[in-house]
Amino acid sequence: MAGLSEYTLITPTAGISVDAHGGRAKCLQRLVRLDMPVPRTLALSFDVVAGIAAGAMPDTSAIMREFAEGALISVRPSSEDPDWGGPRAVLNIGMNDERHAQFVEQEGRASANALYLRFIHAYAIYVARLDPDMFEDISIHAGDPDGDKALKDALQAYEDETDEVFPQDPARQLGEVLRSMARVWTGTTARLLRSAKGAPENAGLGLVVQEMALGISGGVSGSGVIQFVDSQTGLPQVTGRYKSQSQGRDALAGKDNVMFLNKDPRGTSLQSLLPDQFDQLLKDGELMRRRLREEMQIEFTIEEGVLSILDAVRVQRSARAALRIVVDLARDGVISREEALTRLNPHSLTELLHPQVDPSVKRDTIARGIGASPGAAIGKIVFSATAAQHAAAKGESVILLRRETSPEDIRGMHASVAVVTEKGGMTSHAAVIARGLGLPCIVGAHGLKINTRKKTLVTDDKRHFSEGDELTVDGSLGEVLAGPAKLLDAALDDAFTTLLDWADDVRDIDVRANADTPSDALTARRFAAQGIGLCRTEHMFFEDDRLTVMREMIFADGAEDRRTALDRLMPMQRADFQELFEIMKGQSVCIRLFDPPLHEFLPSTREGTLELAEGLDLPVSTVTARIAALTEFNPMLGMRGVRLGITIPEIYDMQARAIFEAAVEVTKRGDIVVPEIMIPLVSAQKEAELVRSRIDAVAAAVRYVEGVDFTYRLGVMVETPRAALRAGDIALNSDFLSFGTNDLTQMTYGLSRDDAARFMSEYVKQGVFAEDPFHVLDTDGVGELLMIGAERGRAARPQVVLSICGEHGGNPESIAFCRQAGFDYVSCSPYRVPVARLAAAQLAVADGLKLRTITGSK
Amino acid sequence: MAGLSEYTLITPTAGISVDAHGGRAKCLQRLVRLDMPVPRTLALSFDVVAGIAAGAMPDTSAIMREFAEGALISVRPSSEDPDWGGPRAVLNIGMNDERHAQFVEQEGRASANALYLRFIHAYAIYVARLDPDMFEDISIHAGDPDGDKALKDALQAYEDETDEVFPQDPARQLGEVLRSMARVWTGTTARLLRSAKGAPENAGLGLVVQEMALGISGGVSGSGVIQFVDSQTGLPQVTGRYKSQSQGRDALAGKDNVMFLNKDPRGTSLQSLLPDQFDQLLKDGELMRRRLREEMQIEFTIEEGVLSILDAVRVQRSARAALRIVVDLARDGVISREEALTRLNPHSLTELLHPQVDPSVKRDTIARGIGASPGAAIGKIVFSATAAQHAAAKGESVILLRRETSPEDIRGMHASVAVVTEKGGMTSHAAVIARGLGLPCIVGAHGLKINTRKKTLVTDDKRHFSEGDELTVDGSLGEVLAGPAKLLDAALDDAFTTLLDWADDVRDIDVRANADTPSDALTARRFAAQGIGLCRTEHMFFEDDRLTVMREMIFADGAEDRRTALDRLMPMQRADFQELFEIMKGQSVCIRLFDPPLHEFLPSTREGTLELAEGLDLPVSTVTARIAALTEFNPMLGMRGVRLGITIPEIYDMQARAIFEAAVEVTKRGDIVVPEIMIPLVSAQKEAELVRSRIDAVAAAVRYVEGVDFTYRLGVMVETPRAALRAGDIALNSDFLSFGTNDLTQMTYGLSRDDAARFMSEYVKQGVFAEDPFHVLDTDGVGELLMIGAERGRAARPQVVLSICGEHGGNPESIAFCRQAGFDYVSCSPYRVPVARLAAAQLAVADGLKLRTITGSK
Repeated sequence: MAGLSEYTLITPTAGISVDAHGGRAKCLQRLVRLDMPVPRTLALSFDVVAGIAAGAMPDTSAIMREFAEGALISVRPSSEDPDWGGPRAVLNIGMNDERHAQFVEQEGRASANALYLRFIHAYAIYVARLDPDMFEDISIHAGDPDGDKALKDALQAYEDETDEVFPQDPARQLGEVLRSMARVWTGTTARLLRSAKGAPENAGLGLVVQEMALGISGGVSGSGVIQFVDSQTGLPQVTGRYKSQSQGRDALAGKDNVMFLNKDPRGTSLQSLLPDQFDQLLKDGELMRRRLREEMQIEFTIEEGVLSILDAVRVQRSARAALRIVVDLARDGVISREEALTRLNPHSLTELLHPQVDPSVKRDTIARGIGASPGAAIGKIVFSATAAQHAAAKGESVILLRRETSPEDIRGMHASVAVVTEKGGMTSHAAVIARGLGLPCIVGAHGLKINTRKKTLVTDDKRHFSEGDELTVDGSLGEVLAGPAKLLDAALDDAFTTLLDWADDVRDIDVRANADTPSDALTARRFAAQGIGLCRTEHMFFEDDRLTVMREMIFADGAEDRRTALDRLMPMQRADFQELFEIMKGQSVCIRLFDPPLHEFLPSTREGTLELAEGLDLPVSTVTARIAALTEFNPMLGMRGVRLGITIPEIYDMQARAIFEAAVEVTKRGDIVVPEIMIPLVSAQKEAELVRSRIDAVAAAVRYVEGVDFTYRLGVMVETPRAALRAGDIALNSDFLSFGTNDLTQMTYGLSRDDAARFMSEYVKQGVFAEDPFHVLDTDGVGELLMIGAERGRAARPQVVLSICGEHGGNPESIAFCRQAGFDYVSCSPYRVPVARLAAAQLAVADGLKLRTITGSK
Repeated sequence: MAGLSEYTLITPTAGISVDAHGGRAKCLQRLVRLDMPVPRTLALSFDVVAGIAAGAMPDTSAIMREFAEGALISVRPSSEDPDWGGPRAVLNIGMNDERHAQFVEQEGRASANALYLRFIHAYAIYVARLDPDMFEDISIHAGDPDGDKALKDALQAYEDETDEVFPQDPARQLGEVLRSMARVWTGTTARLLRSAKGAPENAGLGLVVQEMALGISGGVSGSGVIQFVDSQTGLPQVTGRYKSQSQGRDALAGKDNVMFLNKDPRGTSLQSLLPDQFDQLLKDGELMRRRLREEMQIEFTIEEGVLSILDAVRVQRSARAALRIVVDLARDGVISREEALTRLNPHSLTELLHPQVDPSVKRDTIARGIGASPGAAIGKIVFSATAAQHAAAKGESVILLRRETSPEDIRGMHASVAVVTEKGGMTSHAAVIARGLGLPCIVGAHGLKINTRKKTLVTDDKRHFSEGDELTVDGSLGEVLAGPAKLLDAALDDAFTTLLDWADDVRDIDVRANADTPSDALTARRFAAQGIGLCRTEHMFFEDDRLTVMREMIFADGAEDRRTALDRLMPMQRADFQELFEIMKGQSVCIRLFDPPLHEFLPSTREGTLELAEGLDLPVSTVTARIAALTEFNPMLGMRGVRLGITIPEIYDMQARAIFEAAVEVTKRGDIVVPEIMIPLVSAQKEAELVRSRIDAVAAAVRYVEGVDFTYRLGVMVETPRAALRAGDIALNSDFLSFGTNDLTQMTYGLSRDDAARFMSEYVKQGVFAEDPFHVLDTDGVGELLMIGAERGRAARPQVVLSICGEHGGNPESIAFCRQAGFDYVSCSPYRVPVARLAAAQLAVADGLKLRTITGSK
C-alpha cells in the first residue's frame, strides 16, 4: 500500500516541516532550495515512523523504486531537535551478493568488500541486534588486504547467529532498518535520554532516506566533513578532514590516509588535491551560513570528482564558541543583535567566567557532589581554614576540604582556590560564599570521607589523600579529580563584552551585585553591575583583630561598655565602607545592617572558650555561661537582624555612623555617594520605624559634626512572610523594599536550607517539589508573597524601589518574575551578573523590544 | 458665676448620665428614683471638673447654699467606671471653729472633736498635701478621751506647716477640695493606674457633693456597710458591719464596738438593736438587686434612728462569686441568661478549674516569673524528671524545677504537681505541656538560680532550698512561695455547670480539646469538649520501652529493618488509640501523625550515648556519627512532620494501621468512631497527595484483613505560610484543614517561640509588637494567612472542615476571629475548653443570638 502520504520526495516546494518531518529533513530541503548538490532524498514523517513502530510498514519496494536502479541508500534519523538524539544512521542499504558482484566489477574487490562489510556490520548489530563482539574481529586487515575472508566470515557469522542467510532483498533490508529505527525511538533508554534534554513525552521521529553518493570510486572519490569555525573558540577556521575512498564520517574517525582540508604543511590536503571542489565547499558553506543563519558542519562526498552534500548540522560548540559565533553572525548582519541575544542560554555564560577542565582530557574522578559554584581549580588540599591561610601566605594554591563550613571559615575560603564540603546543598553556607567569591565549589560530596583530625581524604574505593596532595576541583560538573588536570582559561573576550553591551542596550530591569568585600565589588564592576544590591556587613567582624573587639562587645556590661567596644570597631567599619564607596563610585551601595545572631561570634570549642576567657580576663564559667545563654534552638528564627538592632541599638548606631562618615569622606573628595541602608529580618512596621528614628538621629549628628550635607536611603529587607503581608505599612518607613528570597523561602516553607539538603534531592526526585525552591524561585508560594509585598508597598508609596537580593536574583526565571512584577532591579552574586544581564535582555527581546542604540557595535 | 450648668441636683428627672457625670452619680440617681433615703446630692460633670483642674472654679458659695444651713458635706469621685479609681472621698466639709462650737453644744465634745479632727486630717493630707507623718500621732486616745488636745495639736500643726490658720470658710474649703480632687485625676500616677485598667486617655472624672448624714448623734446613730452575698463564694449571706457613732466606712476599718448586722451569737447586731432599720435595709437591698440588676454593697448611716443610704457600689467579688452571682441573677429572672453569659470575663473561669492560693493569707514570695499555666500546688522540689518519677512512685507530691524542659521530661512532668523553669515563655515546651496537663507552671522564673547538679535552688537574696524542701507554686500569679501555703479548692460547682450549659445552648462554633493522653481526654470530656481537635502522637514514643524500639528504628538499615522495629511499636500505638476512642466514644478524635525530628529521640549526653551503643550493640563511634548526622541547625525548619512521612513512609504506615485497627476494635464493640488523621508541616499539595495514597492503601488492607468497613477523614495541619497560600490545592486532598497557629506564627514572623522569650517582653514593652503573637493571635499577619487559607480551602472544596488547633485556640480574640472566618471549630488545651465555650457564647450573644432551649435551667 504505497502512497504519497507514506513518504515525501524532498524538493524545493515539497511540504516538509520541522514538526512533521524533523530538523534534518527540513535542513536538507533548505539545502535543496539553495541548489546544493544533495542526492535524491525522501522524508518519512513522524506519523509514518510511529506507524512503523506499531506494525504498519510502508511499501518499501515502492520506496526503493524512487531511487536509481541498483543505487544504495542510507537512512538517517530526523527528530524535531537534533539534540534529542535518535537511532544511528545506516548506510549502504540495498547491498547484497548481486550488487556486490557488480561493484567488484566496477570498483574493484577491496572497495566492494568494504561496502558490503560495512552494511553487514550495521545490519547485524543495529537491526538484527546481534552481539557486536561477534563482529569485532571481522575486518579488512593486512593478511586479507582485499577483505575476501572478512566478508565471508561476516556472512557466515550472521547466518550462524540468525539461522538464515543474510537478507538479499533490498526492500526487505530497508523495511527491517526502518522498523528497527522506529522501535529504538520508542524504547525506554531513548525516551529517558531525550526527556533529559527537554523533549516532550510525545516527541516524534522522522527518517530521511537518501541515495548514497559512494565516494569509493577511483582516485578522485572520497568523503569528508567540513566546518568553518573552531568548535572550542568559535573563531573562523576551516576545520575537518577528508579521506579518499571513504564513506560517511570515516574521515573523522580514521587515522590512516586522512587529509587536511586546506593547505597544511603537515600533509596532503583537499585544497591542493581538488582545489575546485574545495572552493565549491567554501562557497556553499558561506551561502549556507547566510541563508540558514547558522554555522553549519557539512558532510560531503566526492565521487568521480563530483561533489555531493549529504547532510549539514549545527556546528557542535563550546559555550565560548557559541558566544563568538552569534556575535559574529550579528556583526556580519546575518542575524539581528536581538536574535543574537536570544540564541544563548544565559547559564552557559557562567562557564566563561572561570577556568574549565579541558574537555578533551581523560578525567580521574575520585568523588562527585553538587557543583555549587562553577569553574575549575588545582590546588593542594588542606583541612582547616587556618591551614588554608598559612599555605596561601606562602603563595600556595590550596583547596579547602571541610565537612561543612561556618562563618569562621570565611577567611580560609578567601585564601583558597576551591572548596569541597561533605554536607550541604546549593544554598548551604559554603555554596553561597563560594559563589560570591567565584571559587569553584562542590558541596554534598559523596564517595569520600574527610577526616579533619587526621587530615586525610579517603575515597570509597580506598584511595588515600593527605594534606598537601594535589587535586583538581571541577565545580561546574561537581567532580573532584585526582592530581592536576589540564585547565582552559576564562574567556572574557571582546565577544563576551560586545554581547553583554547589546544586552544592556535592550534590557529594562537593572542588575546589581551582592558584594560584601572590595574584591567582590571589583568583580561586580568588572561585570558591569549597576551598583551593589546587598552588602552584608557581618563578615567585617570576623577578621582576627575585630573578632576580639566584637567579643568584648558581647561580654560588655551594659550599653556604655558596649559602646566603648563598638567605638573601636567604628573606624575599621568606616574604612570598609569608604573602600566600597570608592570602588563603586557613582553607583548605589545598599548596606545591610548587622544580621547574624551573636553566638556566631563566640567559640564553639573548649579550647576556644578557654582562650577567650583568658583574653577577656574572665572566669571560664562566666564565658561558658554566656555562650550557653546565647545558644539558640533555632538560630534562623532567633535573636538576629532587626531584633538585635532594637534590643542592642548601639550596634546599628555604630554602623550608621561608619556609613555616614565614610560617605562624607568620599563626598569631600568630590565623588557622588548615596548610601542605602537596609534593615534585615523586619516583621513589623514598628521595627523599621524605631530603627529609622535612631539612624536619622545619627545622620543629623554626623551632618552637624562634619558640616557636610549628604543624602541616604533607608529601606527594609523583606524576608519574613509577615513583612511581605505588611509591606504597605512598612513601605511608609522605607525608601526601598528588597526581597530576601533565601530567608523568605525558608520561612514560607518552614524549611531550613541547611537542613533541607538531607531530603531535598529525594523530594525533587519523587516530584513532591517540582524544583528545589532554594534554587528556583517558588512562584506559587514565595512568589505570591513577593507579588503581595510589591503591590502593597507600591500602593502605599508609589515611588518605593523594589528589588530582590536572594540567591534567586540571578536566575532567569526569577528575573522574569521580578520584571513582570515591576521590580526596579535584581541583585545577585557578582559572578551571576552577566547571566542576569543576558537573561533580562532576552525577556525584553521576547517582548518585542529593540536595542536602543542602533549605531555600530561598541 | 454660679449657674445651672455647673452642678446638677440629683433628682429622679435630672439629666444625669454615666458618660457625663460618672457611675456613682448615675447610681445615686437610680437610688433616688427608687425612693431610697439618699441625702441631698449634687453632681459635677466631667467637663466642670476638668474646668476646675484648669483653673475655672464654680461658685462654691452657691453650692454650699444648696444644702441646709450649717450642714456638713462630702465629696466623692464619680468616674465612668468605678474600677478606674479616683481621688479619695473627703467628708465633713464645712467644719470649722464655729460649727465645732455648735456641735459641742448639740452632740457633746467628743463627737464634735472627732468630726473636726477627721476633716482636718483629710484636708491637711489630701488638700494641703502635708506630710501624713505630721498627723500620725494626733488622735483621740485614753489620755485625752474627749480629744481636746488632739484637736488643738492638729490645728497647730496645720498652722505651723502652712503659715496660716486652718481655713474657716466652708465655701473656700469646698473649693480647695474640688481643686485638689480634680488635679489628682490629671496626675501621672492616676493616669497610669486607670490606663492599666483599660480607661481611655481622655477618661473624665465627675464629683458627687452630698449633704452628710452624721451618724454621731445620741445612741441610735451610726454608720455601716451591708451586702447580701458572700464576696468569696457569691452565696446569699448578709455581710457587713455597723458601728455606732461612726462615719463613712469606719465600721469596716475599726475593731472596737463594731456590730454584726444580723443576729449573731458572737455579739450584738444591728438586727437586734434596730430591727426596723435592718428590715428596711433588707428591703432596699432586694429592691436595688431587682432594679439595678446587680449585687450591690450599700453604705448607710442611721441618725437619730433615721436610715440614710449614702452610696451603693457593685459588690467586690472573686471569680467564683462572680459566676454564682450572675447565675443566681439569671435564675431569679433579674437578668436574662444571655446577659448572664456576657457578664463574666471568660479568662476568669480559669481560676475556677484549679486550686488557688487563698488570697487572704500572707505570701512568702521567693521568685516570680510568667504564670504559664494557672492554679496552685504544694510539693517537694526535685531537679530531674527521673527524681520526679521516683518520688511520685512513693506517693509524694513533687514540683519539678528545670532550666527548661524537653520532650524527655514529659513523664517527669506527668509525675509532678507543678513545674518551674528558668527559661522559656508562654509557649515554651514546659508551658504548653503544663497547660495541657493542667499543672500550675511558671516559666522564665527570675530571682532564683536552679543548680541541677547540686540539686539546689538559691534565690537572689541568698535563700537556699534543696531537693525535698516544700514550696508552693502559684501558676496564676506566676509566684513561687516558700513552704506550703493555704489553698482553696477548684470550684466546678452547679453554677459553673449551669452557666456553661447556657453557653453551649447559644454558641455557634464548636470547641474541641487538644488531648494527647487518656488523662487529657478525660479532662476534655469533663469540660464537655466536642471531641479531640489535636492528638499529638509523639509522646507515645517517649515511654521507656517504646523509646528503645524507637531508637532501633532510627538505627535500622533500610526500610525492612525499620518496619520490623515499627511492627513492635504498632500494638502499643493501637492500644493508645483504642483507649482514646473509648474515652471519647461517639466524638471525633483528630490524630496528628508523627511530627518531631528524629534526633529528639536520641540521647543528648555522653552517658546516654554509651548506654545506647551498648543497647544496640553498635560501636560508640557509629552511634555518635548517627546522632551527629541527624543533628540540625534549625530543627523547627528541618526534617520533621510530613517530610519524615515521605522519606521514611513506614512510620506513617504503622500509625495509620494502629489507628484503623483500633477503630475496628472499638467499632466491633458497637461504638461509633470516625478517626481523623492529620498530616503535619505540609507545604505542598503533593505531600498530602502522597501520604493520602499510602494511608488509603493501609485502610484498604485493614478493611480486607479485618472484614470490617469503617470510614475516616484525612486532613492537613496548615502551619507553614505556604500551606495557607496553597490551601486551594491542598484542600483537594483534605477533608479538613486545621490551622496550627503556633508554628504558623513562628514562620510568619521568622521567630522561634523558644528563642523569642529572650526579647519578647522588651519588644512588647517598647511597643514593637502590640502583643506577644504567641499569646494573642496576630490578626494582621498570621490572621491574614488564616483568612487566605480558609477562603481558598472553602472555594476549592466547600465542605472542607476548618479549625484552629494552636495554643491560640482557646483565646477569646482568636475565637472571634475564627467565628468571623466561618471556621467549624477551635481546639485548645482541655483546661481552656470552658473559657472557649464561654467566649464563643459571648460572641453569639453579641450578635443577637438567643439560647435555643427556653425551658428552665438544666
